[in-house]
Amino acid sequence: MAGFVSFVSSGPGDPELLTVKAVDRLKKADAILFDDLSAGPILTHAKAGADLVAVGKRAQRSSPKQQAVSRLLLDFAQTGGHIVRLKSGDGGVFGRLEEELVALRSANIAHEIIPGVSSACAAAAAAGIPLTRRLTARRIQFITGHDNNGQLPEDINLSALADPGATTIVFMGKRTFSQLQKQLEQHGLPPNTPALLAEAVSTPQQTLTRTTIRALAEQLEGDISTSPALILYGPLAEGAGG
Amino acid sequence: MAGFVSFVSSGPGDPELLTVKAVDRLKKADAILFDDLSAGPILTHAKAGADLVAVGKRAQRSSPKQQAVSRLLLDFAQTGGHIVRLKSGDGGVFGRLEEELVALRSANIAHEIIPGVSSACAAAAAAGIPLTRRLTARRIQFITGHDNNGQLPEDINLSALADPGATTIVFMGKRTFSQLQKQLEQHGLPPNTPALLAEAVSTPQQTLTRTTIRALAEQLEGDISTSPALILYGPLAEGAGG
Repeated sequence: MAGFVSFVSSGPGDPELLTVKAVDRLKKADAILFDDLSAGPILTHAKAGADLVAVGKRAQRSSPKQQAVSRLLLDFAQTGGHIVRLKSGDGGVFGRLEEELVALRSANIAHEIIPGVSSACAAAAAAGIPLTRRLTARRIQFITGHDNNGQLPEDINLSALADPGATTIVFMGKRTFSQLQKQLEQHGLPPNTPALLAEAVSTPQQTLTRTTIRALAEQLEGDISTSPALILYGPLAEGAGG
Repeated sequence: MAGFVSFVSSGPGDPELLTVKAVDRLKKADAILFDDLSAGPILTHAKAGADLVAVGKRAQRSSPKQQAVSRLLLDFAQTGGHIVRLKSGDGGVFGRLEEELVALRSANIAHEIIPGVSSACAAAAAAGIPLTRRLTARRIQFITGHDNNGQLPEDINLSALADPGATTIVFMGKRTFSQLQKQLEQHGLPPNTPALLAEAVSTPQQTLTRTTIRALAEQLEGDISTSPALILYGPLAEGAGG
């Protein structure tokens, strides 16, 4: 008999930011498939004897790797039991959830999706700011800093991204931010627009750096680190009441 | 001695979508100030004797009401103890968090912000879809359907909102969606763009309706209900793998 798959969003890293439902599924799971980004203290909820499988997907890998992850998930699900597929942040946000969903559906494997705390929401909370402000920051947008090849996507919507009335969060954007910022500035977004660099949010290694988009672009020029980081820019990045 | 305030995000409604940290703070609180939208089963975590205070903020009220809420929060905090200010969804997303943060800071009241599951993430999870897709849905945006006066904001960024490569979530947008959709269509977004109406997400009253932006606009023409609802539109609204 085929198994059941719970896609579980792990939140930003702090195990206390797991939902009650996520903890329940982690405790029940016969196997937990996790990415490098979401391991650690969260897995302490696993029951004795559960298979803990690092699928090792990293942001810069290309699509064959994702196919291998989907294949592995399907293999586990088809052997039966309760499988947890752990996704960092909220699994629906840049989590490559769709490929795995489609694989399960094509094989008629029952599943559920458990939403979680997005790293974007956690970064703002850690910095003591909201993501929206009446009148002057009424739109929030999330983008990813790289395409399949690790480059800044070519078809980004600069009218959307250079809008001074939005709060923008760039996921995995450190390596391409200097390139993005040049385009934003050419499109009219002032170089002194407030920015926040949030790394390892909600973990003991968390760092928050308040800066501006141009200063951050200069700081990150040539950066090749792959540490989990978010860049937030817009009027609220300098702080609530700013 | 002044008290301590925890801004606690309650998530979309299902008490199992509270975070572990949120449950902890609810259990410890001497007083819990909550909005109409986030009451119910979540408050069962409150300890015996805790003050449960409905502050009754509704979306269409104007700013003096928000000032009264901030004032009330400050009054509670200044009498001491541990105060929870409960916010539905993620408190940083259209939660009018800033006004209350500024009030506490001006009075030097210690506080923390606990992020939560956004209703947008919960709606997508309930519908079995991710919010992003590689190549064709790489930007997510959240907007609110009304300004302080309950009208569609005048200064919306139509280049951003009519972008067929984004997933857009409109919070509290039922009453103004027909107006918004006309502008989207004039700006080139095809009327058959997939849309999802998600009401009372994650609660026993949840309904999910798959449609298109024009059909939904026609359905909602003249709608005056104030039930909590999200409208999601973009390529993913028709389903994963679609």
